[in-house]
Amino acid sequence: MKSITVSVPGKIILMGEHSVVYGKPALLAAIDKRLQVTITPTNDNKIVLIDKKLNLSEETSINQMVVSTQKARKNLKQFEQDNQIKYLDFSRSTELTYVKIAIIETFAFYRKQLKNGFTLTIDSDLETGSGLGSSAALAVATTGALTATLGLPLDKTVISSIAHTIEKHMHGNPSGADTAITCFGGLLWYRKEISILKTITPINFAIPKKLAQNFILIHTGKPAESTGEMVHKVKLFSQKKPALFTKFLKDQEEVSRQLLTALHDGDEVTVKKLINQGEINLEKIGVVSLTAQTLIAQIQKAGGAAKICGGGGAKKGSGIVLAYHKDKTKITEICQKHKLATFTTTLGSEGLRIERANPITKH
Amino acid sequence: MKSITVSVPGKIILMGEHSVVYGKPALLAAIDKRLQVTITPTNDNKIVLIDKKLNLSEETSINQMVVSTQKARKNLKQFEQDNQIKYLDFSRSTELTYVKIAIIETFAFYRKQLKNGFTLTIDSDLETGSGLGSSAALAVATTGALTATLGLPLDKTVISSIAHTIEKHMHGNPSGADTAITCFGGLLWYRKEISILKTITPINFAIPKKLAQNFILIHTGKPAESTGEMVHKVKLFSQKKPALFTKFLKDQEEVSRQLLTALHDGDEVTVKKLINQGEINLEKIGVVSLTAQTLIAQIQKAGGAAKICGGGGAKKGSGIVLAYHKDKTKITEICQKHKLATFTTTLGSEGLRIERANPITKH
Repeated sequence: MKSITVSVPGKIILMGEHSVVYGKPALLAAIDKRLQVTITPTNDNKIVLIDKKLNLSEETSINQMVVSTQKARKNLKQFEQDNQIKYLDFSRSTELTYVKIAIIETFAFYRKQLKNGFTLTIDSDLETGSGLGSSAALAVATTGALTATLGLPLDKTVISSIAHTIEKHMHGNPSGADTAITCFGGLLWYRKEISILKTITPINFAIPKKLAQNFILIHTGKPAESTGEMVHKVKLFSQKKPALFTKFLKDQEEVSRQLLTALHDGDEVTVKKLINQGEINLEKIGVVSLTAQTLIAQIQKAGGAAKICGGGGAKKGSGIVLAYHKDKTKITEICQKHKLATFTTTLGSEGLRIERANPITKH
Repeated sequence: MKSITVSVPGKIILMGEHSVVYGKPALLAAIDKRLQVTITPTNDNKIVLIDKKLNLSEETSINQMVVSTQKARKNLKQFEQDNQIKYLDFSRSTELTYVKIAIIETFAFYRKQLKNGFTLTIDSDLETGSGLGSSAALAVATTGALTATLGLPLDKTVISSIAHTIEKHMHGNPSGADTAITCFGGLLWYRKEISILKTITPINFAIPKKLAQNFILIHTGKPAESTGEMVHKVKLFSQKKPALFTKFLKDQEEVSRQLLTALHDGDEVTVKKLINQGEINLEKIGVVSLTAQTLIAQIQKAGGAAKICGGGGAKKGSGIVLAYHKDKTKITEICQKHKLATFTTTLGSEGLRIERANPITKH
C-alpha cells in the first residue's frame, strides 16, 4: 500500500473574458498556485475526507457517498431541464459533498473502486470563488489521485473528461476549459462555437521563461457583482451599443490571436502592448471599476502592463488583475501603497502531476 | 503471421471552404468511399508495394526506403525555409515513393519495425486530386495497418499525428484536418486561428441517419484552376471588395455554426436552407462556374439543396458538388441529362478501422 499525492495548478484567463461568451476565443494559462490531493489507503473500510486549509474532516463510507451521488445526479438532470442553479444547492453545499461526488463519479467511470478504506486529504493554495479554477482543480486532482491509486494510467484526456463530468455538479454547464487547463497545464485555447460545440485546444509550446516569470497577480478585492451579473451587464451593453460591441468582439479576437503569437515568439514589447490593449477594450464595455482602472494606469505609467482577468467588477473590486513588468518590484511597490495583496506566478505551469508515491512507513 | 487489412474513409468539406483560409471555421465530413491497405508479412526480407487501382508494383527494401525518406526529409526542411513547392517534387513524384516515406516515418515514430519482409497492398475508391483527401487517407491507412501489424494499440490520436507528419511530404504545410477526419471519421470542426494554432475538433455526435443517407456527390469536372489559384482569386476579391468580403466571412461562419446545430437536431428544412445559403455566398465571391451554378439551380428547383465543396472553379468545372434531396433519384436524373457522374454517400462514415485480420492460409 502506498500513499499517493498529486497536484494540479490553478488557472487565469489571459485574454478573452466576456468576448468568449459570444463565440470569440479565450486564452487560459495555468499558474503556480496549486492544489494537492493525497490518498492513503487503509486496512479497514473507513473513508476519511480531510481539507487541511478549511480545517474540515469527515468520516464516510462508499454507501453514503453513492447515496449522495445518486441525489446529485438526479438534481443535475433537473438542472439540465430547467436551467435553475438552485437544483445544484446540494452538490454545492459543502466542499466535502463535492469531493464525495467526485470520488463516486471516478469509480463509476472506471467501473472499479478501491477495495479498502482510505484517507483523502486536500491541501490548496487556491482561494475558492476567485476565478482561479479551484473547483475544476479539485475535481482533476481527486480523479487523478484515485486513478493513480487504482493503478490505472494517468491519461490526461480521460481524467479531464471525468473531471468535466464532476464539475457539472458544481457549475451545471461548465465549459470544460477549467478542467482541461488545470489537467494539462501550460496554455489553452478555448472557443465556444455554439452551445453544442466548445473547442478546447491545449497549446503545444511554453511561454519563454524570460517572459513567463515576469507576471504578477493582484487581488483588487472581491467584486460586488457575481460573474453572472457582469455577464448580464455586458449583454445589456451589447443591446444598447451593438456597433461598439461588434467592434469589441472583433478587437478581442485579434488581441487574443496576436497575444498567442507574441508569447510564442517571446516578443515582450508586443505582449505588453496587447495586455494593455485588452484592458482598454474591457474598460470600454464597462467591466472595470474605477479603483482597478487607477491601479492599472499606475502600473502602465511605471513601464508595466496590466489588465483585469476574469469577469471583472464595476462597482468596487474587479477581482484579480494580471500585471507584467520586467522588474516586478515596481508593481509590488504600487500595490503596497494601495494595500493590495499580490502573488508572483510563472505563467503556464505544469498540469496534473504525481508529487509523491511513498510506501507507508509502519511505526 | 497474419494478414491485416485496414480501411479509412475519404472526406469532403461540408461548409467553410475559402473562409477557412481567413480564420473562420470549416466543417468536414467523412464519406462512404474508402481506401484500404493490406499488409501481409512474409518469411523473407522482400518488401513489395502494390497499388491495385493504378496497377503499380515495386519491390524494395528497408534500406532503400530509408534512403528515400532521408532525401524527403532534407527536401521538406528546404521547403520549410523557402516555401517553394518544387522541393517536394521527389516525395510527390509517385504514389509508391510517398508510401515508402509513410512506412519509414511510422517505423521511426514507434522506434520499431517489422522483422521480416511484407507485401503492402493499396486499394482505393478515392480519386487523387479531387479534394476527397486521398493523400491523407493513404497516410492514415498505411500507418494504421503498420501499427496493427506491429501489434501496437490503434490509438487514433497517435496515428493521426504520425499521418500528419507524413502528409507534410506531400503538401508541405497541411492543416492536419484531412488526416484527422480520415482517421476519426464522422464530422470534424477545423479552424486556423493563427499560423501556429490550427484547432481540430472531432464532433462527438453522428448526423441522424434519416438525413445522413440523402447526400449525393456530383463530379462537375476537374476545375481549370488549381486550388492555389482559386485561393489567390479570392484574395484579390477580398482586396477589391473588402466590405463585401468581410460580410462573406461573417456569413459563412454563421452558416457553418448553424449547419452543425441543424445536423445535430436532424432539422432537414434548415440543413437544406443552409447548404443553399452557403452556395449563394460562394457564388458571390466568384468561385463557382456558370455550368455548376446552372446545375445547382436545377437541383434547388427540384426541391433539393446543393453547393460546391472544395475550392471550386470559375472557368470550367467546379470540382465536386454536394447535393441533398430526400429523393435522390431527382438529382441523378438531372445529372444524367448533364452527363455527370454521381455517387451517393452517407455522410459521417466511420474512420480508421480494421477490416480483416486473417491468419494466412498455407497452401
